[in-house]
Amino acid sequence: MKRCVFGFLIAVAVAVAIAIAAPAFAADETLLGFPGERSREQRELESRFDGTLNAENLKQWMSHLAARPHHVGSEWGKQNAEFMAELFRSWGYETRIETFEVLFPTPKLRRLQMIEPVAFTASLDEPALAEDATSGQKDEQLPTYNAYSVDGDVTGELVYVNYGVPEDYEELALRGIDVEGKIALARYGKSWRGIKPKVAAENGAIGCIIFSDPRDDGYFQGDVYPVGGYRGAAGAQRGSVADMPLFPGDPLTPGRGATADADRLKIEDAPTLTSIPVLPISYADAQPLLEALKGPVAPPSWRGALPLAYHLGPGPAKVRLQLEFDWKMATARDVIAVLPGKTFPEQWVIRGNHHDAWVNGATDPVAGLVAMMEEARAVGELTKNGWRPRRTIVYAAWDAEEPGLLGSVEWAEAHADELRRKAVAYINTDAYGRGFLEMGGSHTLERFMNQVVRDVPDPHKEMSVAQRRRAAILVNGDDKAKKEARERADLRLAALGSGSDYTPFLQHLGIASLNLAFFGEAHYGQYHSVYDSFDHFTRFMDPDFHYGVALAKVTGRATLRLADADVLPFEFATLVETIAGYVDELQKLADEMRETTAEKNRLIDEGSYVAAASPEETYVPPQREEPVPHLNFAPLENALESLRSSVRAYEEALTAASAEGGELPPEKAAALDSVLMSVERSLGRSEGLPGRSWYTHHVYAPGFYTGYGVKTLPGVREAIELRRWSQASEQIEVAAAVLAALDEQVERATEILTR
Amino acid sequence: MKRCVFGFLIAVAVAVAIAIAAPAFAADETLLGFPGERSREQRELESRFDGTLNAENLKQWMSHLAARPHHVGSEWGKQNAEFMAELFRSWGYETRIETFEVLFPTPKLRRLQMIEPVAFTASLDEPALAEDATSGQKDEQLPTYNAYSVDGDVTGELVYVNYGVPEDYEELALRGIDVEGKIALARYGKSWRGIKPKVAAENGAIGCIIFSDPRDDGYFQGDVYPVGGYRGAAGAQRGSVADMPLFPGDPLTPGRGATADADRLKIEDAPTLTSIPVLPISYADAQPLLEALKGPVAPPSWRGALPLAYHLGPGPAKVRLQLEFDWKMATARDVIAVLPGKTFPEQWVIRGNHHDAWVNGATDPVAGLVAMMEEARAVGELTKNGWRPRRTIVYAAWDAEEPGLLGSVEWAEAHADELRRKAVAYINTDAYGRGFLEMGGSHTLERFMNQVVRDVPDPHKEMSVAQRRRAAILVNGDDKAKKEARERADLRLAALGSGSDYTPFLQHLGIASLNLAFFGEAHYGQYHSVYDSFDHFTRFMDPDFHYGVALAKVTGRATLRLADADVLPFEFATLVETIAGYVDELQKLADEMRETTAEKNRLIDEGSYVAAASPEETYVPPQREEPVPHLNFAPLENALESLRSSVRAYEEALTAASAEGGELPPEKAAALDSVLMSVERSLGRSEGLPGRSWYTHHVYAPGFYTGYGVKTLPGVREAIELRRWSQASEQIEVAAAVLAALDEQVERATEILTR
Repeated sequence: MKRCVFGFLIAVAVAVAIAIAAPAFAADETLLGFPGERSREQRELESRFDGTLNAENLKQWMSHLAARPHHVGSEWGKQNAEFMAELFRSWGYETRIETFEVLFPTPKLRRLQMIEPVAFTASLDEPALAEDATSGQKDEQLPTYNAYSVDGDVTGELVYVNYGVPEDYEELALRGIDVEGKIALARYGKSWRGIKPKVAAENGAIGCIIFSDPRDDGYFQGDVYPVGGYRGAAGAQRGSVADMPLFPGDPLTPGRGATADADRLKIEDAPTLTSIPVLPISYADAQPLLEALKGPVAPPSWRGALPLAYHLGPGPAKVRLQLEFDWKMATARDVIAVLPGKTFPEQWVIRGNHHDAWVNGATDPVAGLVAMMEEARAVGELTKNGWRPRRTIVYAAWDAEEPGLLGSVEWAEAHADELRRKAVAYINTDAYGRGFLEMGGSHTLERFMNQVVRDVPDPHKEMSVAQRRRAAILVNGDDKAKKEARERADLRLAALGSGSDYTPFLQHLGIASLNLAFFGEAHYGQYHSVYDSFDHFTRFMDPDFHYGVALAKVTGRATLRLADADVLPFEFATLVETIAGYVDELQKLADEMRETTAEKNRLIDEGSYVAAASPEETYVPPQREEPVPHLNFAPLENALESLRSSVRAYEEALTAASAEGGELPPEKAAALDSVLMSVERSLGRSEGLPGRSWYTHHVYAPGFYTGYGVKTLPGVREAIELRRWSQASEQIEVAAAVLAALDEQVERATEILTR
Repeated sequence: MKRCVFGFLIAVAVAVAIAIAAPAFAADETLLGFPGERSREQRELESRFDGTLNAENLKQWMSHLAARPHHVGSEWGKQNAEFMAELFRSWGYETRIETFEVLFPTPKLRRLQMIEPVAFTASLDEPALAEDATSGQKDEQLPTYNAYSVDGDVTGELVYVNYGVPEDYEELALRGIDVEGKIALARYGKSWRGIKPKVAAENGAIGCIIFSDPRDDGYFQGDVYPVGGYRGAAGAQRGSVADMPLFPGDPLTPGRGATADADRLKIEDAPTLTSIPVLPISYADAQPLLEALKGPVAPPSWRGALPLAYHLGPGPAKVRLQLEFDWKMATARDVIAVLPGKTFPEQWVIRGNHHDAWVNGATDPVAGLVAMMEEARAVGELTKNGWRPRRTIVYAAWDAEEPGLLGSVEWAEAHADELRRKAVAYINTDAYGRGFLEMGGSHTLERFMNQVVRDVPDPHKEMSVAQRRRAAILVNGDDKAKKEARERADLRLAALGSGSDYTPFLQHLGIASLNLAFFGEAHYGQYHSVYDSFDHFTRFMDPDFHYGVALAKVTGRATLRLADADVLPFEFATLVETIAGYVDELQKLADEMRETTAEKNRLIDEGSYVAAASPEETYVPPQREEPVPHLNFAPLENALESLRSSVRAYEEALTAASAEGGELPPEKAAALDSVLMSVERSLGRSEGLPGRSWYTHHVYAPGFYTGYGVKTLPGVREAIELRRWSQASEQIEVAAAVLAALDEQVERATEILTR
């Protein structure tokens, strides 16, 4: 274990050692930011908070909020916003509904027909089920479609492109197959869905169809709805296909809030709309298409769970895809509820979950939403005894997350300057299920979050959620994770990519963020379907809402501790250790690419690829690649060395400046706070990442070709992955400059402590 | 590269280096056993041999031999034996048909009914197809069944047991499921089929059903017959389920030839019959059973490609399985064709392929058989120009391989003493397809075989079959194999387990053996089915029989070189290197087991397994295991050290005794020969392996719980795997004694050279 940041962290280390050895709570552990007696007081507050939480509320609110479809712009979405605002007000919050006018196309025409070699018309329909009370609300449901697909009427042969990521097209090329002028048939999974039409179009496809394969999302996973929780033959996944890795939010107002009077791009100039028409379909609709494909049999890893031999095409299956949308504007309604802080009202702890759904959305997002509402209610209850948080707490129920994080992005853009000044942290939730706590976020908060999760009991096992998570890793993790879980006191926070409302806060504004959920034991299977319903949730997700209450305990503690700490509980050593790990990964990545490229070129030169290929099948050997140069990682290594030494100096200064028990003099605490809350900002640069200036954070970003999946040190990593060697070298300098900026913040903090 | 055994191997090393760098033939490489000019002469002979080979013969003979079903005891099997004997005679061979009387049960009653929760009767039928001319020969076809299953009439709930190997039952136990009193439903694959009922019975099952899952053997692989080559919904796999790892061959005459007057066990005392009834079924018959199972969903790796959620049971699916067999004797007819050697008639090179099939058997075994026949015809042609081999060549077409290697085992047992004295080597083939040469065998012959395959051109690519095989490894191998293919001049021979007729020669009698086939590009999919037919072969396996001719070139060269070499081309250094590799593996195996056992016990003690398990599902944590002790591998390491030094001394003596060009004085050559041909015998011990004395070879054996899959240094390896620590220590001593016996042979050879 590294040297401790605060004097009282020695106590933490001891407590941690005990926590690993025996299944007990670490209730006597001194909390980061709460020196001496303050930890006990804080835990008493949290105990009152826990005592207020009531699972029945979650159930009641879910039953109401998910009673009808409530996508952005819908009648029920508006009523839900007003319903929540009224509740927040009744709990003592200063509450408002902020509105934004956003582009939200909905289908006028969706038609998919196979015209050769046999005629078939896709049903594109999720039928009502007797066992699911809300599944028949046809008048209010959005049909299955991909938002921000362009209009189109295209006819072409099909090519099966697996997950539709770049390496899949390399496999096709080896077999002499391309999608130029054809329609790509991709399956959901591996990448975020918006990557599939983007890459298909880059490769010349004129249309893209995305189906849910039962291997990834259906009977291969377990019994299908309504017998089990998994996706049935007619279930299809709605979802946005805007080019989110370029920028999320309203396609017409990049970088600025979509207020009524905002400057707007013309629709035809909006860069995040797809360039080809895209439609999601069910596996019932996909099966006839796949059965009609001929050509080479797909590689083993491309084969799904439909009862057929997966062929690549092209053709003879030929389809006509017709899509027309109503390119209308919709009003997004963000519910903002504020509990002003008594000591530092200008420091905001923001807690959010979206409220819009693709259809009824019981799991996504209502499950997380009702947990947040119960948390807010319980916090409100605390104020009735005279308690008030030291910092301001802001609860936000975002609208229009589903089409691409519109509610949160527009709000963050509209309030960017204020947020950069005032935001301490953003804590996000969204869908959840039963199981194990998944924690992602800024690594300045990793130790803080480990303290939180050591204090929250699992609803069903006699242990903390931290212990249960660690046990799951020890039993089911990969070898590296298992080893780490034995050796490392803290659980790791996952780095955040995208896929929920933390993105504008973390990656656009540089606000330290967290994303929290339970998962792993529920049978979801209804992602973005009409069957993501109250009936489904209460049978297959969290029937008694106990994990919802546990989630409120986790997020409530995180919110309360951030709001109430004497000094903000950010910490640098873990961040630096984590970034050092990323730098190691990048060097290994470059080394491995160098080795595999050299071997690949050798196999090409000596003719081994052609030798190994079957003479009966078309085979186009791969092209030689430029050898991978040795990159100069020294700027990053030097920046890390300097940072490590600055962090050591800071820790020493902190210890020297603290009284016994770890308490800092109040004026130093306040000055230190103002530095700590803006540390994450130093990890961003206003010019943003190469080719996508909206993303300013230089440690965490969604991948340009993965979508949701994170790329850490993204400027460098993506340059290497894309074999842009001079850009990689430039980006190493940029990343080193980012670390130098962080170093300055650490030195500023040290200066405050030592002056 | 190690020091060369023969002086002329230096030339080999150079030739090898060239062969890797450039796609050229190594036609100037000096052949092991053919010093100086003799290599050129031998290659001229082989060139004449090649020129005689005619693909049309293979096709004609296959068309005839596979025209009707020809299992052991069938009318067409008898006619085939006589047909072949007549041909061998016409080619100049001294030919006889040797007969054995063997137990060969065939079905009187096969009935499988599901009685709960829904009624279903399995069809157990492979229907005739218009596209397959012989598929409708119902009167002569054996129905789908497992030979040497006992009779039975059992009723019980089903449990899905995945592949039915021991670790699958451990997974079931974690979920609180056992098969006691139930019927195990296993899928084909992973282990040899006979392991499945053996392990099911060990776990208390009262019956066993084995189905062909389309994941492993059906549409997941490619289009099904007759559109493609793969197994269709009604296809089922016949096959033996006798306890072959105990001993193969006739169940009533273990260790002795099943001649008419042989002592026989009573059927009820025969130890290799199953203890519970077993039946193979198609996936069409399996699907309703799997659909009716409930209970936990099977682990991901257990799920096949049927369009359903795989559940484990037990039940509610309940079946009645009724099996009755006609326990009759059948006559096995081995065709034995001899070409006496002119110099050493008492040294036999034996070349074999079986002739019986489960049904028509075009691929298995007729493909390999007709390649061998054409080889024999071409060898016969060579004698017409006055050539005669120095050693005797014996061609054997075995009967009754399918029920359990009966024809070859009984012949080997009947002639055991003579074979131990006279056999130089046994070269086996069986089914083959298009693609890459697969070579398995004794490592004393690895360098020899590498010379053979460098001289045979691939039928479709401008390179040797060795180069094509190496290219396939470089492109598609695992990381270890890729690295080795770059660094090692020779291709490795795979160690032999079981599954074809080499087993009695190699593992019972200690005769150096080879097993050769092309595979990798054909679409087999009809293993042990009525659709393994001439129509199937000529569409999906080797339509122009070019790979059959290539196989004849490989096996013909191996046969001719072994028969004609001045000194037998056995070599020790590769064998010792290979065994040293196995010893390393065993130490790593023990170390890994020690580590995983310690971690497993820790996870049990600290409660992590229970913590990670879902509270909603039954979970029975695993039992603590005895820690893995450190074993004393020193006896093996010391034996290897001594061997290495003996091999060095032998190589030096050989060089010293050889004239320029590598030629040995004739009397030394002859004396050395007599040692070399019996070296493999020294790797066996008459008391055999623990619990299965029939298997005497202590370097290669089929696994007791894998069946076909090889276990190298089996006495030690299986003791470790079964956690029998004192047995493992004993077997290390035994294996060291085997290496000492080999050492003695090497020293004997050195003594001959230096006296």
